[in-house]
Amino acid sequence: MSGKRIPPGGAIGELDLLRDIRTRALTAGRRSSVRVGIGDDCALLGLRAGEEVAVTTDLSIAGRHFRLEWHPPQSVGHRTLARGLSDLAAMGARPMAAFLSLGIPRQLTVRNRRGPSWVDGFFEGLLRLSAQHQAPLAGGDLAESPVALADIVLIGAVPVGRGLRRSGAGPGDLVYVTGSLGGAAAGLAKLAGSKTKYSSLRWTHFYPQPRISQGLALQRRRLATAGMDLSDGLSTDLAHLCEESGVSAVVQSELLPVARRASLEQALHGGEDYELLFTAPSTVRMPRSLGGIAITRIGHITRRLPGKPPVMIATGSRMEALAPSGWQHFRPQAMDPAQGSKRRGV
Amino acid sequence: MSGKRIPPGGAIGELDLLRDIRTRALTAGRRSSVRVGIGDDCALLGLRAGEEVAVTTDLSIAGRHFRLEWHPPQSVGHRTLARGLSDLAAMGARPMAAFLSLGIPRQLTVRNRRGPSWVDGFFEGLLRLSAQHQAPLAGGDLAESPVALADIVLIGAVPVGRGLRRSGAGPGDLVYVTGSLGGAAAGLAKLAGSKTKYSSLRWTHFYPQPRISQGLALQRRRLATAGMDLSDGLSTDLAHLCEESGVSAVVQSELLPVARRASLEQALHGGEDYELLFTAPSTVRMPRSLGGIAITRIGHITRRLPGKPPVMIATGSRMEALAPSGWQHFRPQAMDPAQGSKRRGV
Repeated sequence: MSGKRIPPGGAIGELDLLRDIRTRALTAGRRSSVRVGIGDDCALLGLRAGEEVAVTTDLSIAGRHFRLEWHPPQSVGHRTLARGLSDLAAMGARPMAAFLSLGIPRQLTVRNRRGPSWVDGFFEGLLRLSAQHQAPLAGGDLAESPVALADIVLIGAVPVGRGLRRSGAGPGDLVYVTGSLGGAAAGLAKLAGSKTKYSSLRWTHFYPQPRISQGLALQRRRLATAGMDLSDGLSTDLAHLCEESGVSAVVQSELLPVARRASLEQALHGGEDYELLFTAPSTVRMPRSLGGIAITRIGHITRRLPGKPPVMIATGSRMEALAPSGWQHFRPQAMDPAQGSKRRGV
Repeated sequence: MSGKRIPPGGAIGELDLLRDIRTRALTAGRRSSVRVGIGDDCALLGLRAGEEVAVTTDLSIAGRHFRLEWHPPQSVGHRTLARGLSDLAAMGARPMAAFLSLGIPRQLTVRNRRGPSWVDGFFEGLLRLSAQHQAPLAGGDLAESPVALADIVLIGAVPVGRGLRRSGAGPGDLVYVTGSLGGAAAGLAKLAGSKTKYSSLRWTHFYPQPRISQGLALQRRRLATAGMDLSDGLSTDLAHLCEESGVSAVVQSELLPVARRASLEQALHGGEDYELLFTAPSTVRMPRSLGGIAITRIGHITRRLPGKPPVMIATGSRMEALAPSGWQHFRPQAMDPAQGSKRRGV
């Protein structure tokens, strides 16, 4: 927020806040796709010839997806946008614009002599990432809410018929991931534990990097048969991909790119890494890295066998089922984030 | 919900609920624009040649935009979608798809022997309206939340450069509205008061009809210079239109189409009517109705005079300022919905 129109010491009226966001959003990122932005009933976005529209929405709620006492406001803003951008990356879409619905308790808008408000920090984190990926904030909604929540919408564009689907994997394909796995879960475990050690792990959890350029490269170079992002954890997400493709998968545990200081458990089940998971025929010469991020083969796709679990894990010569252990809302589950999240959310 | 996969008496797991919504959403409305719907990282939507994308988001929170003890779940679902559709109507856009982020306390997903859950009713209301306007639910997100909330995203399409903006009104234009005003506010006042009388007023409040076909007609027949929807109340919304167009307006109080059993106050300041407010040159022959809904001239646009209020109201020969009295979040305001909402929200 510029702070010019809003005197310190008071809550911000909705119109002031909207005006302030509008000013900041317009200066963040390129606006080539946004023909009409914040301030009308709808935003208007222009596509290029031969493109279709990709749309994704992600809801983050305090106490579920972040904690006000653990996450700095900049991290909450960053992670809110990163979740949406990661979905665009998974489809191989280029970002066009972001829309944010924000519900916040009044006290989070208060500025005082000690500095900016929580919502100032939130927008700092969100708009910094938005500028990095040319995904300008082009609209949204704002309401007072008893609990802090942010629903992010990302609109992207992808050449017609070229979006990277979950359903394209076939038997014989190899399974790949970008980057390393388990870092976000290890960081989350540290948040609940000691405060001083391993700050780089916390950073991985606070500021995950959506793999937009890697997703675009996979789409443009036609390298992948299927793809998705790793938001709920490898064991859960790979099972989704297998279900949508009607296949099974075998993961080789010794191939997994486990993040530094993370455990194998965290790499298998920890969510929120926002790396890409994808498949490609074995005949494709896969680059070792894309845009500076390592690409690692972690297993292969097989035919689906009736009565068999969709995902198996091989450790040496031992083969066992890899049960999905990601986060699912509304079901009573044993949950202890201090143990190192086995699922999304905190 | 189909109820087949979900036994009565228990809370629904997220995956079950998503699967169930997916089944119901696919059967609601035409799906011509939706190439990939619920179940992948993004939905993919196809535009026709020469169109651009219209995007709008609206956040509804229990206790702010609806009350669980006042509004039937079907009404909450209907109103959630109606808010978004009304924004598309205001731009003259055709609906392509809707996306819903839903945060709900676990108990609202519980079905028992007495019948369906709250969330069943919510989707009943939402999907019925979605089918009426060919706006299929093509994706969204779901989370457990301490407070019920629904963020709706509507994606529409409009020929490039033809979207109805707020900024196009010029001096000499006439000001029009669709339908009648104040009915929703009068209905809200009844909700807080007597339970038995005036049930048709409550209906107006529970099930507002977005003016999609009227907005499309205005756009296609090039009848209007500027337009928006009446969500916050005429006094507030007309001030917005004047601000965006750099003009002033005079409303003639005797011309206002006050809804049956509503007061002039409610017609001027009551929100959530979701009628369209638009301007047109005096040379345009405006139809008396569009798609069976009356079109009423209520005033005219003048040049903006420095130091003068943007909106004036004329009653006979008396002229006075019409101060915006709509809803604004985060500012302490005297509020008593029992008096007949002077602003949006309850």
